[in-house]
Amino acid sequence: MTGRCRWAEEYLEYRFHDPALLEQALTHRSASACNNERLEFLGDALLSFAVARELYDRNPAEQEGNLSRLRSSLVKGVTLAEIGREIEVASQIILGQGEHGTGGAQRDSILANVVEAILGAVLLDGGFEAAGALVIRLFSDRFEQLPDANSLKDAKTKLQEWIQARGLVLPVYKVKSVSGVPHRQSFVVVCDVKDVSSTVEGRGQSRRQAEQNAAEQMLSKLDSDDR
Amino acid sequence: MTGRCRWAEEYLEYRFHDPALLEQALTHRSASACNNERLEFLGDALLSFAVARELYDRNPAEQEGNLSRLRSSLVKGVTLAEIGREIEVASQIILGQGEHGTGGAQRDSILANVVEAILGAVLLDGGFEAAGALVIRLFSDRFEQLPDANSLKDAKTKLQEWIQARGLVLPVYKVKSVSGVPHRQSFVVVCDVKDVSSTVEGRGQSRRQAEQNAAEQMLSKLDSDDR
Repeated sequence: MTGRCRWAEEYLEYRFHDPALLEQALTHRSASACNNERLEFLGDALLSFAVARELYDRNPAEQEGNLSRLRSSLVKGVTLAEIGREIEVASQIILGQGEHGTGGAQRDSILANVVEAILGAVLLDGGFEAAGALVIRLFSDRFEQLPDANSLKDAKTKLQEWIQARGLVLPVYKVKSVSGVPHRQSFVVVCDVKDVSSTVEGRGQSRRQAEQNAAEQMLSKLDSDDR
Repeated sequence: MTGRCRWAEEYLEYRFHDPALLEQALTHRSASACNNERLEFLGDALLSFAVARELYDRNPAEQEGNLSRLRSSLVKGVTLAEIGREIEVASQIILGQGEHGTGGAQRDSILANVVEAILGAVLLDGGFEAAGALVIRLFSDRFEQLPDANSLKDAKTKLQEWIQARGLVLPVYKVKSVSGVPHRQSFVVVCDVKDVSSTVEGRGQSRRQAEQNAAEQMLSKLDSDDR
């Protein structure tokens, strides 16, 4: 048995029938044309589905929006990179010369992609049941300690719900100005809540960021006015 | 057997063990608190995974980016609504009074959501194999006639590839101005390709749209300069 297969048995509790699939899942595109990018595509889809299924079963009273938010919090890159560190996968990754020198195996994006590719490899090697079971094992602590789904709502959603709960007219966002050099542009967005005659400005490096920032400020303004 | 179960046997070639699941999948939120929104969340995830798996198997030489583009073209709302029409699902949808009057059952968004919810219901009723097989049946013609994945690339991607193929410096996009009332704002973006001293302006209702528009114009400019 190869060292990588031994690693998989220990950390994934899975024995590969075809070790070449495991090797491919661990191979970054900097090392070979036969790399993990296609397996990552497959594993990403398997992961989203397996997590959706588990959340659906575990949260029978939760609405679709909250299920989506919970899933996003679980399958995002930084969580996958954490899992990559928990299973100590960095030492198994096959990188090209350039990436090796710069410590690529510890980069969040490379770790996250490898975790997804491993799921794709187990799917091809052992079938849907085996791959789904691996997702549940890798995420078991996180499924046990799910965050409050409402706390995951972004500022615009929270503001919208605050407004709707009081039967007011929804907030309006408008880009006021854009400045700065490409890739470092700064957006200023005005948020206007008509029924309370309240206007604030938000800033950010994208329109979306500036809108969220404006919504945050509007929420704290409305909260303090409420007192 | 209920009329809806007969419809499912004819158009889905699937017999429900639990007809209540089918009924829930067909129930819009305007009609009942026990509606199809949670099933839609589940079916959407199943659909993305089943399509990813099928595309992976059918296109062994295709790169990740092209597989993603092919999948997006298959699982987008307008395609799902088309499938909803093919299986004549509109007549089976359960709507509240308001939506009924306005012809809601023919709306793309409602049709697409119902198709996803049906997939979720089959998953719960018959398991993963049954639901995966239904995806393949519903999409079989589309899998046989996949578009050329390269044709699905957006203008920014095409421009980037054009530039990279010639070893030039990548294009730079910059928002020049934003005008108009909220929800109908108009963005002007400048696209600059340094190595060919070429600059164009694109317009759109979002930053993204304006960037795509600018990339299109730059592409046709570069193409005509090439001749």
